[in-house]
Amino acid sequence: MSTVYLNGRFVPEAEAGISPLDRGFLFADAIYEVVRYDRGRPYRLAEHLTRMREGLEAIRIAATPDFFGPAGEKLLEANGLADADAFVYAQVSRGAAPRYHAFPPAGTTPTVFAFARRVDPPPPPEGGRAILLTDERWGRCDIKSVMLLPNVLAAQKAREARAIDAILVRDGFALEATKANLFLVSKGVLRTAPNGPRILPGVTRGAAIDAARKIGLAIEERAFRVEEMFSAQEVFLASTTMWTYSLVEIEGRPVGGGKPGPVARMIREALVEEFRGARV
Amino acid sequence: MSTVYLNGRFVPEAEAGISPLDRGFLFADAIYEVVRYDRGRPYRLAEHLTRMREGLEAIRIAATPDFFGPAGEKLLEANGLADADAFVYAQVSRGAAPRYHAFPPAGTTPTVFAFARRVDPPPPPEGGRAILLTDERWGRCDIKSVMLLPNVLAAQKAREARAIDAILVRDGFALEATKANLFLVSKGVLRTAPNGPRILPGVTRGAAIDAARKIGLAIEERAFRVEEMFSAQEVFLASTTMWTYSLVEIEGRPVGGGKPGPVARMIREALVEEFRGARV
Repeated sequence: MSTVYLNGRFVPEAEAGISPLDRGFLFADAIYEVVRYDRGRPYRLAEHLTRMREGLEAIRIAATPDFFGPAGEKLLEANGLADADAFVYAQVSRGAAPRYHAFPPAGTTPTVFAFARRVDPPPPPEGGRAILLTDERWGRCDIKSVMLLPNVLAAQKAREARAIDAILVRDGFALEATKANLFLVSKGVLRTAPNGPRILPGVTRGAAIDAARKIGLAIEERAFRVEEMFSAQEVFLASTTMWTYSLVEIEGRPVGGGKPGPVARMIREALVEEFRGARV
Repeated sequence: MSTVYLNGRFVPEAEAGISPLDRGFLFADAIYEVVRYDRGRPYRLAEHLTRMREGLEAIRIAATPDFFGPAGEKLLEANGLADADAFVYAQVSRGAAPRYHAFPPAGTTPTVFAFARRVDPPPPPEGGRAILLTDERWGRCDIKSVMLLPNVLAAQKAREARAIDAILVRDGFALEATKANLFLVSKGVLRTAPNGPRILPGVTRGAAIDAARKIGLAIEERAFRVEEMFSAQEVFLASTTMWTYSLVEIEGRPVGGGKPGPVARMIREALVEEFRGARV
């Protein structure tokens, strides 16, 4: 039985209850973060906290994102994950109140919920398949909100197609996957969609760009079209839970010569090294 | 203290708790309906149930929407609303499960939550003001899901502008408001956006069209541009909680000659008559 964090208390998961009038449940009125920990040490915590603060500001929830820190460490310990490769998920909603769309009365307390879990084993080293789906998400994908139903439906379609993920396509541009950013390597240049309202400003996206720059790669933050993936040397995903992951097939057609490429591997190695080195 | 319905039980609101791992809370993985009752008799219940069934099918939650019926009536009674003008809100989520985007294991039980409340007093009879906002919603607004954060943010902006609601505009078309469909009357023709992925197929939207047809009005289901509202004879909202409500000002400019018009009034009277007459 795992222990979760809810509004300042550490409780067994089965005993944790939130009001069904919580606006996170009724309105998707909540944001979240996922921080990865190497044996208790968080990876790029400051960037996660900044993004969380910006998300709270964007949707105007008055809460201070001070969760990851002592509370996060305690949560890891309580779940026997203090020495593991694990993550902490934390969510802040606008709280429970009588159901009206506009903000609830002053004094409504935001709900803060968090849980910890061991990082899943990495997917197979031979690379993965992806499908293409129309991007049905809302207009503010840069906010890490729980507006995730389109991601859910796309991830399920990917699973049913025995793919690792779905690439979301808007106006012909391959923007990102359901829970990872998307990169390609073409003519020696690393490309990914620019930050903006259409994608999540992924922490590992930024870390991958940092790593690529150190390796000496040219970087271009410019959205690419679906067909550009098929002529690229490499196509890969990047996320905090997978680091990088090479795609070798998209919609049944090979990409990257049908095997994982060296850029994804070099970046992944650099990220893992940084992650392990984050331990002071 | 109100009584709510949660997974087959009637419990005091303060005692109702759902797991914070409920997918309604984590992923906006849920749909809902709001049915209005005249002294215990539901209005157009069959249409609500059909829409709920279609919503569940669209997002593939395996649940039967048999909530509104004896349980809905019991909920009204338990809250002293059996003789009132009231509504029942019911929500079905995909249930609680370890957090992965794709669907949870078979056997995960959907969460069914409902509450009842007296219908709010109607807004002032002199008509209301609206603001215009870019429609930031996802691509499946026809599904009555809890993907409502953009509606929340827009409703809050409307309140701060002392407006009754915000009209959501996509590609220049004024589609609907945050919780109501949108109509105009131009050259004697009643117009509203056609059903499709960009708007909610409102039950009262359909009822208003039925009523207008009986009155003998020509009806055109075709989206209109923002500027067409300013040359219209009337602009009004339609929803189950307000019936129709005339807009007299949009973004500070008068519409409909600055006063409620006869078509909105005639339709509202017809809807109220149908509602009261629904009592058999």
